[in-house]
Amino acid sequence: MSRLVRPQTLRGFRDLLPEEMLLRNEVVDRIRRVYESFGFVPLDTPVLESLPTLIGSGGDEADKQIFHVTEAGAPTPEDGESTVAGVGMRFDLTVPFARIIAQYHPQQLRLPFRRYHIGQVFRADEPQPEQGRFRQFTQFDCDIAGSSAVAADAEIVAVMVGALEALGLQPSVPLGDTGENGPGYFIRVNNRKLVDAFLAGLGITEPAVARHVLRVLDKADKISGPALRAELGEGRFDQSGDRIPGVGLAAEPIAAILDFAAVRQDTRAKVVDDLAARLPDDEQAAAALAEVRELLGHLEALGVSEAAARFDPSLARGLAYYTGTVYEGTLAQAGVGSVIGGGRYDGLVSRFSDEPVAAVGASIGLDRLITGLRNLGIELGTAATTADVIVLVMPGVEATHAARAAHELRQAGLATELFVGEAIGKVGKQLAYANAQGFRAAVMIGSKELKEDTVTVKDLRAGIEARTGITDNSEFRKAGSSGQQVVPRSELVATVSGVIR
Amino acid sequence: MSRLVRPQTLRGFRDLLPEEMLLRNEVVDRIRRVYESFGFVPLDTPVLESLPTLIGSGGDEADKQIFHVTEAGAPTPEDGESTVAGVGMRFDLTVPFARIIAQYHPQQLRLPFRRYHIGQVFRADEPQPEQGRFRQFTQFDCDIAGSSAVAADAEIVAVMVGALEALGLQPSVPLGDTGENGPGYFIRVNNRKLVDAFLAGLGITEPAVARHVLRVLDKADKISGPALRAELGEGRFDQSGDRIPGVGLAAEPIAAILDFAAVRQDTRAKVVDDLAARLPDDEQAAAALAEVRELLGHLEALGVSEAAARFDPSLARGLAYYTGTVYEGTLAQAGVGSVIGGGRYDGLVSRFSDEPVAAVGASIGLDRLITGLRNLGIELGTAATTADVIVLVMPGVEATHAARAAHELRQAGLATELFVGEAIGKVGKQLAYANAQGFRAAVMIGSKELKEDTVTVKDLRAGIEARTGITDNSEFRKAGSSGQQVVPRSELVATVSGVIR
Repeated sequence: MSRLVRPQTLRGFRDLLPEEMLLRNEVVDRIRRVYESFGFVPLDTPVLESLPTLIGSGGDEADKQIFHVTEAGAPTPEDGESTVAGVGMRFDLTVPFARIIAQYHPQQLRLPFRRYHIGQVFRADEPQPEQGRFRQFTQFDCDIAGSSAVAADAEIVAVMVGALEALGLQPSVPLGDTGENGPGYFIRVNNRKLVDAFLAGLGITEPAVARHVLRVLDKADKISGPALRAELGEGRFDQSGDRIPGVGLAAEPIAAILDFAAVRQDTRAKVVDDLAARLPDDEQAAAALAEVRELLGHLEALGVSEAAARFDPSLARGLAYYTGTVYEGTLAQAGVGSVIGGGRYDGLVSRFSDEPVAAVGASIGLDRLITGLRNLGIELGTAATTADVIVLVMPGVEATHAARAAHELRQAGLATELFVGEAIGKVGKQLAYANAQGFRAAVMIGSKELKEDTVTVKDLRAGIEARTGITDNSEFRKAGSSGQQVVPRSELVATVSGVIR
Repeated sequence: MSRLVRPQTLRGFRDLLPEEMLLRNEVVDRIRRVYESFGFVPLDTPVLESLPTLIGSGGDEADKQIFHVTEAGAPTPEDGESTVAGVGMRFDLTVPFARIIAQYHPQQLRLPFRRYHIGQVFRADEPQPEQGRFRQFTQFDCDIAGSSAVAADAEIVAVMVGALEALGLQPSVPLGDTGENGPGYFIRVNNRKLVDAFLAGLGITEPAVARHVLRVLDKADKISGPALRAELGEGRFDQSGDRIPGVGLAAEPIAAILDFAAVRQDTRAKVVDDLAARLPDDEQAAAALAEVRELLGHLEALGVSEAAARFDPSLARGLAYYTGTVYEGTLAQAGVGSVIGGGRYDGLVSRFSDEPVAAVGASIGLDRLITGLRNLGIELGTAATTADVIVLVMPGVEATHAARAAHELRQAGLATELFVGEAIGKVGKQLAYANAQGFRAAVMIGSKELKEDTVTVKDLRAGIEARTGITDNSEFRKAGSSGQQVVPRSELVATVSGVIR
């Protein structure tokens, strides 16, 4: 072939090969079982949505990252028509969820509605593969619509804790006063109403200014103290000389804000008591405090430990649509940053419907979570193959004898691969394949077995070293019979069952 | 809100609500278990591929149906640059599989390679929602690369039979000589080499002409005998007056082809014997016959019954890339047409690599399959909810008591929803929700229970009629205690376990 197409993935996209997918399927199954055990039901929406649905939901930054889609035969400007086809790829699963509620409630969906959704989302931002940032990635969300009760916020935290622990993760232990955390997970929780009440006490009531403060606080992990101060004040120049505009606050409120955001205590209740002392004595603050304290009570009732979920006044979460509780889940010492984000977004459904519907939820970033699990060395016991047994095709006998044995094993419920590669009849090569793939047992029916009405069953986990370098059948036979037995043909299923158990 | 965005899906796209998704997840899980029991491993590829990868793989018709993708900030012609971004949405999972083999073999993939892949594919054709045709749909493929052995072709048929039977489907029984089939599935199998050998015997050796004959034969189910004859001959005009060009054959070869394609017998072997009598006495025909007879032997060895898979010389399968065996799976009397398609495509990997890699596989159209299962009335025992138990939130007591009970039940492994809707405290409304959703048990801890350290557990499957019209707690209490018991608080888990078992 002279004109080959180069086999490659697009920049920022990646293939998931079997080893990765087997782990991923295990992770998804475990999380799904937890979601379902809390009463969440599955939902799916199209990858493509109309641009009016997508644009303006997630803020300017999200709008810029939307992939636009046209049909191959769509009109181009040369045809004198517009190219604006009005179709884009979804950038999250929350906006489609808000659309779903508006579209199907009350006729087809009953509130409160708990749904989970696993789906691919697409963002045309700069990919950073080494940090696990791709342009296509998988979110695994759970949300509750139709409840403004704090109990719903707490359920979301509890189900996230359940999901993480189902993966073998334990809560991270803070390492003294270093601000560092031991390996494991923790979920930071905050409430925008509490921050708003505090900022109002400082005279900051303009929503745009308050949001700007939150966006700056979100960077607290990433930029230095002086840089943080500058961004709350007059702004600063970044490393490439670009000006980052500041919020424009004076020194005194800046100090108060940084003091507020830095509050840390051993327990959630102590953090809130500490914050309470910094809040103004007004209705807004009292209402926010009451809501937060109610949340803490629910977290305790749902068995969410202090180590698992911490109250953290510095947590802001960038997205414009959050209105109350916000969450962020992190795997400490896993090198992947946050793996869960979420919060309450009581206004999002109102983009699509006159009837306001309160909603709260969280999203697991599956790709980063899996990278984090690997980095932490957590094994979920997945193998490189899905079948336990392989039936080889021996030289000099009809291949259907192998097929018949494979069928018999499958009928007995044993996961079995029939060897069909180009090395049919070459036993050594087939065994090399079987060992590399990690099968547990190999079945052979050669001419000798056929004559004697027997079958050879080999335990592939026994004596792996002894078989190294074997390339053909005669060498294999010489290498000794460690873990190999010849039994009557009628005992095939029983023998293989015994070997793989 | 004055400027609402209308909540809607794009034409040709659809949402999958929970009832549909719960059934779909069950179907996917069952098929996945069968694929894995045959040794297939999972793989995933991006939704987006480069246009050179996609275009020219599936033929002209497929090329026209590709959705093209651009980034939101991509240059437009006014910027003096091209709009051709070179990115499209995949239209099947076979082309990405061929790319994968070329890209990762031999470094990361060992042959023979059995993979399954579930994924969404996109085609910009005319949607026909009432017939289950959408522009986004889900394929669930399994393929074997690196084997030209007929055993591999037979494995694909056997795994498809296994998948369909795992869904409770049985082979369809032909209804006498009517050509009609009883409800159930059947897989039609043919081999292009056999058809090619037959056509060569008629003097038709030009590949383009042979492919045209196949495309016409593919329509045998859909168009009348005279129309079929006309398309093999001089062509015809369709209902809207458009000319459909013909193959240009004379009356004699047309009659021979239709006679060949119409061969039917009770067994696969008899069909092939019958066809053999019509084949020329040459090497090409002998080789094709030997391959087909070997396939029949393997199907028998793998336990594939005559009813499950039939040899059908009229089966052509439109796609250009098939080179040998072709398959089509149908649910008879299910109103959805074919639900499985596939075959051997030994040349597809050669688009991407100098090393030829033989491959064979099949694709299940999940959306049509599920529609067919519904139409056949096959129940897979899925419920409308994922949790068995709901804990209500009673008036006059702290909501955390309900949360604590929910946590306790979940810890004991019982799938439990904590009620969090706006009707908190309104017991009748909560029970109406619980009944509509199909929970099996409801747990209530009101002020009376709290005082007495008890809990009320209600069997929601008992006495549903008695509860109709209940709107508040007092009425509920009046309605009688059918299936309702008050037990010590410490017996919560044991009692609920007993009720839902």
